[in-house]
Amino acid sequence: MLIHKLTADECRDVLSRARLCRLACARSDQPYVVPVSIYYEPAENAVYSFSVLGQKIRWMRDNPLVCLEVEEIVSRSAWVSVVATGRYKEISRSTEDAELRRRASALFEKQSQWWLPATAEVTSTDRPPVPIFFRVMLGRLTGRRASKPE
Amino acid sequence: MLIHKLTADECRDVLSRARLCRLACARSDQPYVVPVSIYYEPAENAVYSFSVLGQKIRWMRDNPLVCLEVEEIVSRSAWVSVVATGRYKEISRSTEDAELRRRASALFEKQSQWWLPATAEVTSTDRPPVPIFFRVMLGRLTGRRASKPE
Repeated sequence: MLIHKLTADECRDVLSRARLCRLACARSDQPYVVPVSIYYEPAENAVYSFSVLGQKIRWMRDNPLVCLEVEEIVSRSAWVSVVATGRYKEISRSTEDAELRRRASALFEKQSQWWLPATAEVTSTDRPPVPIFFRVMLGRLTGRRASKPE
Repeated sequence: MLIHKLTADECRDVLSRARLCRLACARSDQPYVVPVSIYYEPAENAVYSFSVLGQKIRWMRDNPLVCLEVEEIVSRSAWVSVVATGRYKEISRSTEDAELRRRASALFEKQSQWWLPATAEVTSTDRPPVPIFFRVMLGRLTGRRASKPE
């Protein structure tokens, strides 16, 4: 198996196809990583995501430095992995963020429950929790591709 | 879709089946997350893993607090996710760690290249990098299962 680095453009291609990533945040030297739903916006070099209020959101409000990881796995010897550092930026309920909020909401409308792993327990009798939308403004992108030698 | 918390036993069952996890570490408030190969050892409540020397190992030597995440995804409405905090413990090359090292090495013998996403670029002409084996001694386990309402 050969491992090759991806170019920045290839990393962005992988992010564009991704609908799920693992998002890591940290507080007081303790990292925390959970799966979240994402949409990559190349024009902003940012990913959009959302969650209900919980540990992840509280920690990212305290420390906006995050890291996300995306995979495309075909087999043990054919996969791609992209890792990106980034900065958490919450989309508020203020008038100023209304357009961003409308946009984020539209992006995730079709997959409204996929993001729930990171939330509190939800049962059929509960009211749907209120989502908090946020962006991760991306910094350094690195990626690797594995393939079999020809 | 319903989301239910897993019991500690159910979390351990998921970990026992997992061969891949996402491992998050942190330094100076910056988290970092990469996929790594694992074997869970229930008797020690620890996972075994390995990597070549790189950012991940350097950071975990500086700050041993880590977090790992494991998934079993069947579909958008049928999945399991387990998150565990833990502490990095390197398996040294000393005589004292010889038995641990032999054991870790045997666990990963059959999948010797699967763990390479987290390593430096490797091409066919390079010599195989020397692996560093480590354990993550697990702390708090939490897990969630999604299912469709009956």
